[in-house]
Amino acid sequence: MNIENILVVSPKYRELQELIEQNQVDKNFRFLPEEEMKDELLEWADAFVAFNTKQDYDYSKVKWVHSLGAGVDRYVFKKQWDENVLLTRTICSFGQRIGEFCLSYLLMDLQYHVQFRKQMEQKNWQPITPKLLSDQKVVIFGTGEIGQKTAEILSNLSVQVFGVSLSGKEKEYFQAVYSVDQELPILQNADYVINTLPLTEKTERLFDETIFHQLSNAGFINVGRGASVDEDALLKALNTQHVRFAVLDVFKEEPLPTENPLWTHPSVLITPHISAVTTPVEAVECFVETLRNVEENKPLRNQVDIVKGF
Amino acid sequence: MNIENILVVSPKYRELQELIEQNQVDKNFRFLPEEEMKDELLEWADAFVAFNTKQDYDYSKVKWVHSLGAGVDRYVFKKQWDENVLLTRTICSFGQRIGEFCLSYLLMDLQYHVQFRKQMEQKNWQPITPKLLSDQKVVIFGTGEIGQKTAEILSNLSVQVFGVSLSGKEKEYFQAVYSVDQELPILQNADYVINTLPLTEKTERLFDETIFHQLSNAGFINVGRGASVDEDALLKALNTQHVRFAVLDVFKEEPLPTENPLWTHPSVLITPHISAVTTPVEAVECFVETLRNVEENKPLRNQVDIVKGF
Repeated sequence: MNIENILVVSPKYRELQELIEQNQVDKNFRFLPEEEMKDELLEWADAFVAFNTKQDYDYSKVKWVHSLGAGVDRYVFKKQWDENVLLTRTICSFGQRIGEFCLSYLLMDLQYHVQFRKQMEQKNWQPITPKLLSDQKVVIFGTGEIGQKTAEILSNLSVQVFGVSLSGKEKEYFQAVYSVDQELPILQNADYVINTLPLTEKTERLFDETIFHQLSNAGFINVGRGASVDEDALLKALNTQHVRFAVLDVFKEEPLPTENPLWTHPSVLITPHISAVTTPVEAVECFVETLRNVEENKPLRNQVDIVKGF
Repeated sequence: MNIENILVVSPKYRELQELIEQNQVDKNFRFLPEEEMKDELLEWADAFVAFNTKQDYDYSKVKWVHSLGAGVDRYVFKKQWDENVLLTRTICSFGQRIGEFCLSYLLMDLQYHVQFRKQMEQKNWQPITPKLLSDQKVVIFGTGEIGQKTAEILSNLSVQVFGVSLSGKEKEYFQAVYSVDQELPILQNADYVINTLPLTEKTERLFDETIFHQLSNAGFINVGRGASVDEDALLKALNTQHVRFAVLDVFKEEPLPTENPLWTHPSVLITPHISAVTTPVEAVECFVETLRNVEENKPLRNQVDIVKGF
């Protein structure tokens, strides 16, 4: 595919410009913030590069759209996509970042950070024995790039890791992988459940009362997408000890509205969608590599399957 | 060595009795709490088994003393020890436990747990990008059983790990090991410093103004012994940004007295000596194994070198 004119739209457009210029990419670029974006610019462009635009544009005018993030629900979830337009996404250190995020909250819990901080406020010397990672059972929803890297990090630390995916296909670093459609008795014994799934029609509101009801005092970590969780069902599960605590990095609406009851629930921790930040350096690396592969018609490991939605 | 009569003194003496009986050890045992301990019982005993006695007893009357903990400063630090008496200590999952303890506090810091909790209280959605483990330099004082296991856990997660030991001898999982006597320019660039050293005459007050002064905004974790740290020097270092925060699990006096200013310092986290708890099951496993090796005159990996003090 021949790409000459590339339109880059991002709040960090200056930084991206500088980094792309350092890479000496011999193309025509336009860099701008979304406020200056207009549909007619897509008539000039062969490729459109952006993270999370607020508006939708008519992407059928370009040959290729590249997402500067890992998720592409912005482009394809409940939307029409012109099959002639190539869609790619950023794959970089997301798995490592998300793995470390999840591990940090497992250890916070196992090492009783919150309890010891409370005891400290009361100058109360009261030993509690931390729990070992090797005694923990973790169920990870999603066995792709991110879920598998998280499984690798945890299983290398002797955590017992199980997977749930659309296919149920066995994967390295998982003791077993179950299909999302089958019954999941593994949930009963899970100490922690981690969602890494992309948002698609199959994963929307997947974490509903039926799933939460099977958990028994488990920790729940959502690093996938907010819309995969039925928030009312989660609140109910938190109040009935099916879920012991929840760490939520993603929400149906972001920033999370101040009136949302999750902000003040004592068993919820909120992080502002930071578990898998793409640094501009990494985003540009992935973009430059993808551009080269697109031009040379090489296989693309980061091409989005429009039917699957990720 | 022939051992027939074994005296076990511990607040958990009933639990230990039950576990030892399950192991069907064909010896004469007496199990008691320290309140019932008297020096004359040592005349009956061949071996004395205890964790942390409050008093000193005349151990020259027995052939063997076995510590139910990893540290033996209770027996040999600034004390006379009869060289005819064998001294052994417990080695079990300490390294794994201490490694997970340290990792949990590195990740708490790198993932901004404290900041996000504060922002949550204010319903403030303010992304901060977590830092990756692979960008961190950690200096571990002590490259023995515990220090090395901690280094293994961290270096497997791509942390850059350096060691400081008495000998300065190279060890696996450390990028380099320095002798405690030499200058330590590595301290300047350390993101975290972890102390795992036993308390001996060489490590008493090792962490003084000279050491702390070389740190530049580092995190300090003490899982060794409290008396290795000059508390006044630490407080000074915390107030001058040489030390950014300290996680302290061990203290010169335990429980930490309520009037100690560490309790209320905003950059200090106190845990009540829980980073390497011996569970009774593990303690008994190690004791039974050691007893067998002692009787069969096999080499003992957990024999204390009285001159070194650990």
